[in-house]
Amino acid sequence: METAALVAQIQQKKSFLCIGLDVDLDKIPPHLLETDDPIFEFNKAIIDATHDLCVSYKPNTAFYEAYGVKGWMALEKTISYLNTNYSEQFTIADAKRGDIGNTSGRYAKAFLEDLAFDSVTVAPYMGKDSVEPFLEFENKHTILLALTSNEGAFDFQTQQVDAQELYKKVIETSKNWKNSHHLMYVVGATKAEYLQDIRRIIPDSFLLVPGVGAQGGSLEAVWHYGKNSQIGLLVNSSRGIIYASSGVDFAEKARGEALKLQQQMATLLA
Amino acid sequence: METAALVAQIQQKKSFLCIGLDVDLDKIPPHLLETDDPIFEFNKAIIDATHDLCVSYKPNTAFYEAYGVKGWMALEKTISYLNTNYSEQFTIADAKRGDIGNTSGRYAKAFLEDLAFDSVTVAPYMGKDSVEPFLEFENKHTILLALTSNEGAFDFQTQQVDAQELYKKVIETSKNWKNSHHLMYVVGATKAEYLQDIRRIIPDSFLLVPGVGAQGGSLEAVWHYGKNSQIGLLVNSSRGIIYASSGVDFAEKARGEALKLQQQMATLLA
Repeated sequence: METAALVAQIQQKKSFLCIGLDVDLDKIPPHLLETDDPIFEFNKAIIDATHDLCVSYKPNTAFYEAYGVKGWMALEKTISYLNTNYSEQFTIADAKRGDIGNTSGRYAKAFLEDLAFDSVTVAPYMGKDSVEPFLEFENKHTILLALTSNEGAFDFQTQQVDAQELYKKVIETSKNWKNSHHLMYVVGATKAEYLQDIRRIIPDSFLLVPGVGAQGGSLEAVWHYGKNSQIGLLVNSSRGIIYASSGVDFAEKARGEALKLQQQMATLLA
Repeated sequence: METAALVAQIQQKKSFLCIGLDVDLDKIPPHLLETDDPIFEFNKAIIDATHDLCVSYKPNTAFYEAYGVKGWMALEKTISYLNTNYSEQFTIADAKRGDIGNTSGRYAKAFLEDLAFDSVTVAPYMGKDSVEPFLEFENKHTILLALTSNEGAFDFQTQQVDAQELYKKVIETSKNWKNSHHLMYVVGATKAEYLQDIRRIIPDSFLLVPGVGAQGGSLEAVWHYGKNSQIGLLVNSSRGIIYASSGVDFAEKARGEALKLQQQMATLLA
């Protein structure tokens, strides 16, 4: 998907919401466990109930790998369902991969070509040749971890390198990589004020912002410090939406939570 | 597996060789493609032909994910085959995972408990709470990326943080994490002289050293700078062994290459 199509979708739906499909069989409604593929049935119901309120879905691969082959099959079915029925959605494989060049190429092909996600999250520690194989794919996006929303972000990401924090060094450096126009960045909402500095380095890039809601970040602060002329923001919510209810009304309740966020976003976008 | 059992195996076999099972269907002998599960058949033949010469096998998950559900099934069959028939082998899921705490816990369970690998490689960028969930597992090991063998290692890992390179900061910091005695570290052989500094920080830890052979590192230099009183080294070779031949003699030729490395190791260990 081209970035322009994502921007158009945001303007049309008045939403820059991304919904994280982090499916945990211990948390989904018990009646789904009797179906052949509870993970997919859960995702399908959530997607059908929320697709007009969000512009992006983001399955985190850890939750699928945790169920082995069955989990991987559910991931395949989920992305296929999205690509078939809601091809306007910007899909993100939240995989946080990264390896030496030829091996990263394998991950890139798996997520961007075979599974046909629009984008994949990638870790920067191994540098240029671990990320560039992802950037080769036309009309696909690589979402690089810059500043994450967890406590451990302060262990290394905010440490000073060359008189600036490591996460800024990562962003600066990545601008010089081949096909860097395919880059987006993960920036946690729990440090919304950091977005101001980041926007000086990458005024035009899209940012994927986790940590609003369950992790405590404020949507208004993210918008204030993070927006750009093309909106430039995807704000993710996972647990707060998909586990709004564990009853038979789970999809309806998820829609209710998504609607609250979409309405806040519409106000900010107005 | 306890570290003592790994050390005993090294002494018994006179080998600290790890064989990387990075299976590429474009490179394996064509006659295997006619079997139901070419990836597993290839691995099984390689393992049967080399198990007495090495102490560890390391499938890189990228090569399995590249084949989707079939790849994941081949990975499950491979680790199950190892655990059933060669339980003395120290098995490594080369996955380079890492995510926020509860999500990392999912990866940890998938690789260390469900698939029952002895260890998994983990990326450090997201810090303490992204790694500690892996460290909780008794008699399992978490192999943290410190200094990798690729060119991109110089982008961030060797940058100065607090008057030391980032990879040293990573190693120093990780020593304070809960259950840090379950940590091992990835240190690329292409920078063997760096091993001397690393040994000052972690004299007792095991190091997994890729990059000998195809990537140009020297086994003698790794031994010279990297060994400790408990040997403390696993040296990996992948392509140089498993793709020694693409004919029907591939397993025999792989054994030949493994034997060369094992004999060099025996000399060093003597």
